[in-house]
Amino acid sequence: MISETYNPQATRLRGFYMHVERFLDGSDTPRAYLDRCLDEIDRREGDVRAFVTLNIDGARAAADASTARYAAGAPLSEIDGMPFGIKDLFETEDMPTKCGSSIFKDNHTGRDSALIAGLRKAGAIILGKTVTTEFAFYNPGPTRNPFDLGRTPGGSSSGSGAAVGAGFVPVAIGSQVVGSLIRPSSYNANYGFKPSFGAINREGAYSNLSQTSLGTHAATLTDAWVAARVATKFCGGDPGYVGLTGDVALPESARPGRLARFDSAGWDKTSPDIQAKFDALIQTLSSADIPIAGRQNSPRLEGFERLMTPALDVTNDICGYESLWPLKYYHRRDPDSLSQNISARLSDWEKISADQYAVLLDKRQAMRAAHEALSDEFTALITLSAPGPAPKGHDWTGDPIYAVNSSVLGAPAISLPLLEAEGMPLGIQLIGYPRKDRELFAYARWILDVLGLKP
Amino acid sequence: MISETYNPQATRLRGFYMHVERFLDGSDTPRAYLDRCLDEIDRREGDVRAFVTLNIDGARAAADASTARYAAGAPLSEIDGMPFGIKDLFETEDMPTKCGSSIFKDNHTGRDSALIAGLRKAGAIILGKTVTTEFAFYNPGPTRNPFDLGRTPGGSSSGSGAAVGAGFVPVAIGSQVVGSLIRPSSYNANYGFKPSFGAINREGAYSNLSQTSLGTHAATLTDAWVAARVATKFCGGDPGYVGLTGDVALPESARPGRLARFDSAGWDKTSPDIQAKFDALIQTLSSADIPIAGRQNSPRLEGFERLMTPALDVTNDICGYESLWPLKYYHRRDPDSLSQNISARLSDWEKISADQYAVLLDKRQAMRAAHEALSDEFTALITLSAPGPAPKGHDWTGDPIYAVNSSVLGAPAISLPLLEAEGMPLGIQLIGYPRKDRELFAYARWILDVLGLKP
Repeated sequence: MISETYNPQATRLRGFYMHVERFLDGSDTPRAYLDRCLDEIDRREGDVRAFVTLNIDGARAAADASTARYAAGAPLSEIDGMPFGIKDLFETEDMPTKCGSSIFKDNHTGRDSALIAGLRKAGAIILGKTVTTEFAFYNPGPTRNPFDLGRTPGGSSSGSGAAVGAGFVPVAIGSQVVGSLIRPSSYNANYGFKPSFGAINREGAYSNLSQTSLGTHAATLTDAWVAARVATKFCGGDPGYVGLTGDVALPESARPGRLARFDSAGWDKTSPDIQAKFDALIQTLSSADIPIAGRQNSPRLEGFERLMTPALDVTNDICGYESLWPLKYYHRRDPDSLSQNISARLSDWEKISADQYAVLLDKRQAMRAAHEALSDEFTALITLSAPGPAPKGHDWTGDPIYAVNSSVLGAPAISLPLLEAEGMPLGIQLIGYPRKDRELFAYARWILDVLGLKP
Repeated sequence: MISETYNPQATRLRGFYMHVERFLDGSDTPRAYLDRCLDEIDRREGDVRAFVTLNIDGARAAADASTARYAAGAPLSEIDGMPFGIKDLFETEDMPTKCGSSIFKDNHTGRDSALIAGLRKAGAIILGKTVTTEFAFYNPGPTRNPFDLGRTPGGSSSGSGAAVGAGFVPVAIGSQVVGSLIRPSSYNANYGFKPSFGAINREGAYSNLSQTSLGTHAATLTDAWVAARVATKFCGGDPGYVGLTGDVALPESARPGRLARFDSAGWDKTSPDIQAKFDALIQTLSSADIPIAGRQNSPRLEGFERLMTPALDVTNDICGYESLWPLKYYHRRDPDSLSQNISARLSDWEKISADQYAVLLDKRQAMRAAHEALSDEFTALITLSAPGPAPKGHDWTGDPIYAVNSSVLGAPAISLPLLEAEGMPLGIQLIGYPRKDRELFAYARWILDVLGLKP
């Protein structure tokens, strides 16, 4: 069933930003770049099913306009001409927004969400809407993993992860409240960037929970940063948040002063084989003179690990309570309009009282405070992105046990496609400190340098 | 032009909660209560124009169902049968949501926002959608002040303020980001309650700015609290916020230990006549043994007054920056789709950089910190709700200079209809501390006691 052997260089060939110089000197054009994406979509989308809606005519027109701007030496931004896939939770003027639900099958608001409006203003090309699980929860869509069609692409940003993994687009927009961006990034060999909470404007999206962040699935580390950074220049952060800051260019490599190895509750769910691969990577980085401490030799980290053990339970209860509207409301209106996967959970969520919700928020806050306190000693946490490669089958989008941690912390996370298991990609994760997203990219770049990989 | 002499008892007669005992013993019914509201609407809505949409058949059916529940001794909540007007920013299953804009004239999402779903679950009656200014900004709608049709009802919650002032409904839902709830409450003799930031769930509303709060316009202090408190039992707070807490019943009176008289930047815009009325009220309360300090005799309060001087400018810039999406986007799509009132401001808002926005958020945070620090000495701030009664004419919804303060502070505020000028109502405001909304009601009740008024 493996349709393409995993090759860490394969997706990188589709990176966008590396082409900008050639767009400027005329040896390549955004229109030609888009056509190469469309060729790949022609070839494999029938199998992968990453998109709900494609606007190919609109994309070609936008790519032609972008090509003309480069020819005039006046691109609108560093992402002028970059083709995007957009998770189908974000309103788009020219395409419906179906949220993976039959309830929204005819939903076309006719306007661009804040992020999409920003991307278009920056000259980006909105090629299509990508599959999300039902309301970004459990129920899988039709998407298949491009590295093995018999496996899940992960969720909830299923189509965004797969579209980038398949080389259909260099960048796709995803969102994460539990593990919805980092997990599919890991399964599809993406460079996945889940920013600090609030860093990318969520307005005009069906995506309002108190941990939700928008982010980028990308073919290269450079694209993951540049796309997110330029987008926020044009759309800002959530109301009340400044959004990503700093230069647009990918930061230069910076040696992480001291990393904290973070096993988290995921370690016990990880096979010895994959544990060994992660241990070997840690060994490689240690050999390159990065001091790395872990729970075995740091009582502080042991305490942090213990505090974080219930991260997934706390997150699930917070999200369940916050999802009663609209999900319980939809269920009351028409019980058959929701999948059994969601309906079955509603009665548990209804049992959570406001007082219990207050306790959950306090627990989350305690985790955040303990994490931020670590910043005096560690520059970032390093951990797996998932306990293994994408599971076989399509009934389950995989385990968010590693990915949930940055969500509960409101912290930036980057998934790097550095490991391999069962012939499939598997990511490792760097988790930084809130509002220090750019610094985290500098460390991620340094790790790629050590491993001889291009950013 | 004064169509009804202002009488502080007049609107109070329409209070709802005082009738619940009679609903339970069968001497009155929610259906009869609704019919009395509809009679008043029949009589004066043609002049006042508080509603965009009325669902009278739906309201009658809901009132009949409520009547049956009381007859069976089983109301769903303390607000079962309470007729509500809803500011036309909140999605409703059975009515369109037009946001005061031609852009949204055909907008009917077919779902209830979180608050509306909660109200219906509590048995409340959603009678109609009330006029908002265009996107809750400057451009007035058709609503007239029920106490003088030649004057503005205030804005942006124009219809909600006027509907309660006219006795069309006992409670209407409003929202405030600058002065949109407290100002029309003052102009229409409402008891207006602008809760702590986050206290009432905003999901499913076109109302996402970082200072926006939902709240109640009510005919009595009791209804203002009970409606808001019960609503949040059924819909919660914003994601990440616990929402209003404590008993549903209006708290017993509590003597405010020590009040801070807060002149704010509004004082210099207030006529000597109205200054004298406010001074007299302060004198009355002082005579009732409430110690009240002010900037003249408290250096701390003088410092706070100075820090708060730019509250309106800071708020306007924050809100302008945060409103570029969707307003600038709409303007780009079709310049004629926005009023000149909004269009003229867009270019100023675009000049605000992300760095300047960060400075504005810091200024706001400094104001909040200074305010919360006052809690060791003062139980609440007391101030006017507006510099005068509703201005004559309909081109301007009045000055938010007093009302803005609780918005920028994220603090709860209650407007009490205690003053009169030019034969029109004028409110005074109590401002409490974030998440101490219930305590503020206890102080407000005490003030009504002192003045011999019923809650």
